[in-house]
Amino acid sequence: MINIGLDMMGGDYAPAEAVNGVVSFFNNHKNTPIHLTLIGDKGQIEALLSSHQISSELISIVPTTQVIEMHEHPTKALKEKQDSSIAVGFHLLATGKVDAFISAGNTGAMMVGALFSIKAIEGVIRPTIGAYIPREDGSLGLLVDVGLNADCKPENLQQFAVLGSLFAEHILNINNPKVGLVNLGEEEGKGNLLAQATYPLLKENTRINFIGNIEGRDILINKADVMVCEGFTGNVVLKMAESVYDIVKRRNIKDEHFDRFNFEAYGGVPVLGVSKPVIIGHGISGERAFRNMINIACKMIETELTSKIAGSFLPPDSNA
Amino acid sequence: MINIGLDMMGGDYAPAEAVNGVVSFFNNHKNTPIHLTLIGDKGQIEALLSSHQISSELISIVPTTQVIEMHEHPTKALKEKQDSSIAVGFHLLATGKVDAFISAGNTGAMMVGALFSIKAIEGVIRPTIGAYIPREDGSLGLLVDVGLNADCKPENLQQFAVLGSLFAEHILNINNPKVGLVNLGEEEGKGNLLAQATYPLLKENTRINFIGNIEGRDILINKADVMVCEGFTGNVVLKMAESVYDIVKRRNIKDEHFDRFNFEAYGGVPVLGVSKPVIIGHGISGERAFRNMINIACKMIETELTSKIAGSFLPPDSNA
Repeated sequence: MINIGLDMMGGDYAPAEAVNGVVSFFNNHKNTPIHLTLIGDKGQIEALLSSHQISSELISIVPTTQVIEMHEHPTKALKEKQDSSIAVGFHLLATGKVDAFISAGNTGAMMVGALFSIKAIEGVIRPTIGAYIPREDGSLGLLVDVGLNADCKPENLQQFAVLGSLFAEHILNINNPKVGLVNLGEEEGKGNLLAQATYPLLKENTRINFIGNIEGRDILINKADVMVCEGFTGNVVLKMAESVYDIVKRRNIKDEHFDRFNFEAYGGVPVLGVSKPVIIGHGISGERAFRNMINIACKMIETELTSKIAGSFLPPDSNA
Repeated sequence: MINIGLDMMGGDYAPAEAVNGVVSFFNNHKNTPIHLTLIGDKGQIEALLSSHQISSELISIVPTTQVIEMHEHPTKALKEKQDSSIAVGFHLLATGKVDAFISAGNTGAMMVGALFSIKAIEGVIRPTIGAYIPREDGSLGLLVDVGLNADCKPENLQQFAVLGSLFAEHILNINNPKVGLVNLGEEEGKGNLLAQATYPLLKENTRINFIGNIEGRDILINKADVMVCEGFTGNVVLKMAESVYDIVKRRNIKDEHFDRFNFEAYGGVPVLGVSKPVIIGHGISGERAFRNMINIACKMIETELTSKIAGSFLPPDSNA
């Protein structure tokens, strides 16, 4: 049975929305082989669950007494708050008590936890986080990295391309996903030093379907399925796209496509390249986001994405 | 009398739209002390002008026989096509025959021309190009750099902040413009190595009104008037904003604010930090864009922006 750990204390509306997400998930998945381990304040969680009919076989509660607040320094907080829901969640994940861990709490603490509690897959220089990008044709693309790695080397971007491709293939169900290098021009040779040096690495990499450079104007259309850049540009681009949704809402524009710019709806972003599935949610995560994060975690486990990534990063002599 | 040089052969709809822009400018500026020097194919320009009543005192034509096409290599084309409208335009500017030069032609050739024909203002390490960003309150901000400098040092970004502030103050009429450093987080200390090293320089610079880091979500609102970043991120952000307008149009959304995302309407982007006013237009420039570019050039000349920039970059011992 798949066992997913969920931080019930993370996010602006915790634990109420986390509980709603759990209820919603089970309402949408009857007779599922999923068990959820709810990590957090036992009293609060039980009180909120009491009005819902969820079989006790489907859930268990791991009580914690501390919460890492949004503003806290990640490393310091993780160290000092050993009984926080995030610290306990990573402990459960590292010791194999759960198969995946989800939190909408302190993003920095989630990243530090992912990198240091469960470590990178062998061969992965730097794990990364990607974000879904809605395209006009209704499909989703993946922008990677969106903030975990602000400074990158060409080798990092090349690995992000491989990690993103595997995610797009197995989780987004895109066959032979197209990889584009985010750049300031289309032609080979364009770009800053990083992009110029990354281009030939992507071009020569036989594990990905590299289609060349893509420009800012191509990000919101479906030119490439996996859009690769360092985390600085990716973060600025993602947050600007999020703000377009806010503007659309403020201006009372009703449009199906721009509704899909509600990034909250997608749940969280996966940490790619670490040895177990970790999903980091948006602080404003609500019921739908929590349900979606549980779905993504399930899919990552069911498709054995982590093993597939590990296989892809085996050193060449291991392929013999 | 102010004399502005205009490349009539640049842009996708040249020379017709350039002529329309000239006509429109004079229709909107009766009794103006502006003289326009039209550079390009004399026969074509005269034929297009023949149906309009423009006093011969207001315009003169400098005939050229060559055109640098959009796809040509900038340096090579400028060298080989000495009688192209762009090469002639920069020659007129460099020799003082015109006070400003405008073209919607080959962007690379315009940049190379600006950097090598008329040179940077003393003290300016690297000139830069900025772009207008429409904000929800109806005002315009300036994003700088948007592609001329893909790789930057902290000192470059600091100078872009000063150049952008002077432009915002004198051309956009923003009093004490707020300067924001585009970054992936709000707090001091966040960012890639470049942003981290730039922050203290901006904080200590008494010539600008630095308000701290701004995130991607702040670019389209009026948090900062001058938004500073290297040209890689700026270019991706600008082109993504441009694509939002395309999406809005494709989806038949009628909205006053998103109509202002039609970047073509603003005319061109000024090259800041060179010794004379140079404006680079969008390839798709139409009548309105050409008219607006002439307006910006006039304002840059009338406000003596270039001299103000030069004064601001005087070495400290010259201030005595």
